[in-house]
Amino acid sequence: MKLKSNWKEKLCFSAEAGGHQVLMDTKPPLGSDTGLTPKQLLLAAACGCTGMDVASLLRKHKQSFEELEIEAEAVVTEGVHPNVFSSLALSFSIRGNVEAQKALEAVHLSQTRYCAVSAMLSKAFPITYTVRLNSELIGSGEARFS
Amino acid sequence: MKLKSNWKEKLCFSAEAGGHQVLMDTKPPLGSDTGLTPKQLLLAAACGCTGMDVASLLRKHKQSFEELEIEAEAVVTEGVHPNVFSSLALSFSIRGNVEAQKALEAVHLSQTRYCAVSAMLSKAFPITYTVRLNSELIGSGEARFS
Repeated sequence: MKLKSNWKEKLCFSAEAGGHQVLMDTKPPLGSDTGLTPKQLLLAAACGCTGMDVASLLRKHKQSFEELEIEAEAVVTEGVHPNVFSSLALSFSIRGNVEAQKALEAVHLSQTRYCAVSAMLSKAFPITYTVRLNSELIGSGEARFS
Repeated sequence: MKLKSNWKEKLCFSAEAGGHQVLMDTKPPLGSDTGLTPKQLLLAAACGCTGMDVASLLRKHKQSFEELEIEAEAVVTEGVHPNVFSSLALSFSIRGNVEAQKALEAVHLSQTRYCAVSAMLSKAFPITYTVRLNSELIGSGEARFS
């Protein structure tokens, strides 16, 4: 799998693969704030990868959802360099006509078996998750890949 | 650090933070190919983070560059699930009136001290790099963070 990234100006970089482009930048004065930061993209990758699993599994089990939101919140180490993530909390929020057991199972399977990005990132820091269905907290857990 | 991601349709997800948005998707028939895949975003994050270091360091040392390209190539495991990266090669290509020693030093410092994304990802798989200056290979190395 290949991707090319090019410097644009100041600290703005573009990245291109498969005909799609994304801009990365940082806040002024160093950057021009034209896109997400690389660390934010890491969180996006985690959300997208596990979200695709959950959407696929819910559909496979004929669970009809209207909303699937994943909020990622990372704790960033302070005072040490580089400022890596020390932990990541993923909050899944599902709305729709979905069985609680199927929702929990979909997230659990993603976070223990299917999600390649979580599998990689969980080698660097612990990932925990909570699952809400129609606003109600129905479960929580931790990413664990053998 | 927080980011929100929302399901759009099929396997397309948006991610939003700091007023910026990125789309993630996968190829048909499962997705609609409207954006980079989550794994490609991981590569983009790696390139952007180390690229920002290198651009900053070159500028700090008054090295005048016109182009700075980083190509990321990951080996993806086959036959095991999830299909994680088993290694990542970063190819830095710099063009301009830059001293070879300064170019090498900038990449080396990023890959051993400054790049938070490389520091995290190198816990999951080895990251190697090569550095080209005005098309000539001037060095190579491996990401190592203490």
